[in-house]
Amino acid sequence: MPSISSRGTHMPPSPIRKLVPYADAAKKRGTKVFHLNIGQPDIETPQVILDAVRNTHMKVLEYSPSAGFDSYRAKLAEYYKRNGINVTPADIIVTTGGSEAILFAIMGCLDPGDEIIIPEPFYANYNGFATSSGVKIIPIPSGIETGFALPPISDFEMAITPRTKAIMICNPNNPTGYLYSEEELNILRDICLRYDLFLFSDEAYREFCYDGRKHKSAMTLEGMSQNVILLDTISKRYSACGGRIGSFVTRNKTVIDAAMKFAQARLSPPSFAQILGEAAVDMPEDYFEGVHAEYNARRDLLVRRLNAMEGVLCPNPGGAFYAMASLPVDDSEKFCQWLLESFSHNGATVMMAPAAGFYATPDKGKNEVRLAYVLNQDAINMAMDCLEIALKEYNSK
Amino acid sequence: MPSISSRGTHMPPSPIRKLVPYADAAKKRGTKVFHLNIGQPDIETPQVILDAVRNTHMKVLEYSPSAGFDSYRAKLAEYYKRNGINVTPADIIVTTGGSEAILFAIMGCLDPGDEIIIPEPFYANYNGFATSSGVKIIPIPSGIETGFALPPISDFEMAITPRTKAIMICNPNNPTGYLYSEEELNILRDICLRYDLFLFSDEAYREFCYDGRKHKSAMTLEGMSQNVILLDTISKRYSACGGRIGSFVTRNKTVIDAAMKFAQARLSPPSFAQILGEAAVDMPEDYFEGVHAEYNARRDLLVRRLNAMEGVLCPNPGGAFYAMASLPVDDSEKFCQWLLESFSHNGATVMMAPAAGFYATPDKGKNEVRLAYVLNQDAINMAMDCLEIALKEYNSK
Repeated sequence: MPSISSRGTHMPPSPIRKLVPYADAAKKRGTKVFHLNIGQPDIETPQVILDAVRNTHMKVLEYSPSAGFDSYRAKLAEYYKRNGINVTPADIIVTTGGSEAILFAIMGCLDPGDEIIIPEPFYANYNGFATSSGVKIIPIPSGIETGFALPPISDFEMAITPRTKAIMICNPNNPTGYLYSEEELNILRDICLRYDLFLFSDEAYREFCYDGRKHKSAMTLEGMSQNVILLDTISKRYSACGGRIGSFVTRNKTVIDAAMKFAQARLSPPSFAQILGEAAVDMPEDYFEGVHAEYNARRDLLVRRLNAMEGVLCPNPGGAFYAMASLPVDDSEKFCQWLLESFSHNGATVMMAPAAGFYATPDKGKNEVRLAYVLNQDAINMAMDCLEIALKEYNSK
Repeated sequence: MPSISSRGTHMPPSPIRKLVPYADAAKKRGTKVFHLNIGQPDIETPQVILDAVRNTHMKVLEYSPSAGFDSYRAKLAEYYKRNGINVTPADIIVTTGGSEAILFAIMGCLDPGDEIIIPEPFYANYNGFATSSGVKIIPIPSGIETGFALPPISDFEMAITPRTKAIMICNPNNPTGYLYSEEELNILRDICLRYDLFLFSDEAYREFCYDGRKHKSAMTLEGMSQNVILLDTISKRYSACGGRIGSFVTRNKTVIDAAMKFAQARLSPPSFAQILGEAAVDMPEDYFEGVHAEYNARRDLLVRRLNAMEGVLCPNPGGAFYAMASLPVDDSEKFCQWLLESFSHNGATVMMAPAAGFYATPDKGKNEVRLAYVLNQDAINMAMDCLEIALKEYNSK
């Protein structure tokens, strides 16, 4: 029997999915599971954009252009301009989800053995794309004690080697919810310019910023037009995760020409969801206000409930719909598994993502969990009731 | 300015797209262009499967499972069983087009520096996936003089090195239209078993076989359950290229477990087109009979017209919807460009794919073109009128 590849062997399994069999078993026993473990919003996809797909009349479901429909790229350029990001349709490649935009950036800019610096904890699937493309992620630790702020510039400088090609951020951050300030982005700009590095900026959660703060895109950093690649997706913005439509955006012509060749090799992004994405750009601005108010209230509730529990620390996240919390347990993975296997309160339990999977440094984040506030406030309250009682029960064992 | 990666620099541009600017210019001048250059069928997508998408009522466009909807995988297993391929849903991962299935196979089974043997000419995008994953394609020449039959077994054996991990075929073949016989598939089986190699079998055109011949899937080869990976797509089968739905199928548990990790990293395949694909499995069998009769007639017409031209040789292809022809010209790329730039007949011209881009060996196929018979018979006749007159005019220059 032929053996598989080393990269096939070493591809990291998704840390979020490890506990799924335990959740399935809990449901089989009749226990309700509050899913705070994944970033699948319960927010309804706007009917008007679903209708755009339902009202499509086509004779042939043809390949779209490899860069995406021209009409959609034109609309996307409008969307970005409204958000202060001045780009033309030629600066945009429509991708199959944000995932493919990440892959194009890594493949197009880094060779096997090259290094990319990422503040940890970070979105776990970056590991998968790095492994499949032979690239090394160099983590720079950020911690719960500073609320996951950008690590000091000296930490970046110490990590830079001749193989360093890029820094990658997710802003607002998944998994921490941290929203980088303009000052922090300027620090990143200075490092990138000084060491001639790309800045990959994953801005999937652009619209989800709280406390009156505004998002600043890395694309608006001065002097960085040749360094910044924006990695984007409509998944969270319009609760359209299953569409698989994202975008790869840069003003660097050499980079976009290279990415186009990767795009051509896979022929085209999915047509139906491009139609949905195009309709989404025309949605009234107040759509986000409603969504925003709902997430803001959820965040406030979740963070308040968590910090009221003994031994729990949850920094207030400035954006996205995630929060990280440290718990009074030794090993959050074991605790999360116990919650699914051995605990219920009023016939329910809660599922969270153990945070260790978001750290590259071994043993970091072992007592932390990531919570996605993608459920309504009643559900969050009930989930927090479960967690509060569970922690007491677990620690009295 | 940071420099891009070596793989970004060396990604091959699509050979099919090189001439697109000339075609666009011809259209601007008012010349009609008969597109025989790409495999985009003009066959209408069945209304019943488009309606399955149009009639969808969903509240939230959620991620599907990474392996695809369970219901779709169950339906796909039924489809494969009807085609003599005994697989269970657990053997199937739904992919984003056949393209992603190819990428998962290469990434999951081969490491950078490993080699994959492919009879040439071959589907040009295999080059892109090989370049992006650092894998080396070793071409084994097949030629127009044998109608692109499988090269002799000794050619394969001479090409095998300690780095050889797989043989890849496309059956029926793109670009040659060649349909491998059972004897040829058995030869491939023997080589794979003797040298412990994977066999990647791209069967996108399974339904398109002519002259009463039946397709034999590599999945039905005895003793090969651990070696064969089937790479598939609904793009051509149901004229649904823009959907971006394919499948990765193997009974090798280690391989499918590895591929699942790549699938998880990119989260999920597109939801809308999975709904379309699921509806397609329920289409009556006679759907293919109509499509089949139409392509058969087109093939007969195209091949007859080509071979009636002085100095043109076109072997009769047994499957798919492509034909390769050698032309009485030195350089088919220059000729194809001239057709778009400088020729018209009754206000029209014809666009074909220069064949050199499908060969890995330099200078091979320089006087050949690939023609996709994806237009109706009237259009094919007019296109052949153009080509016949053009060849005379070009050669009298």
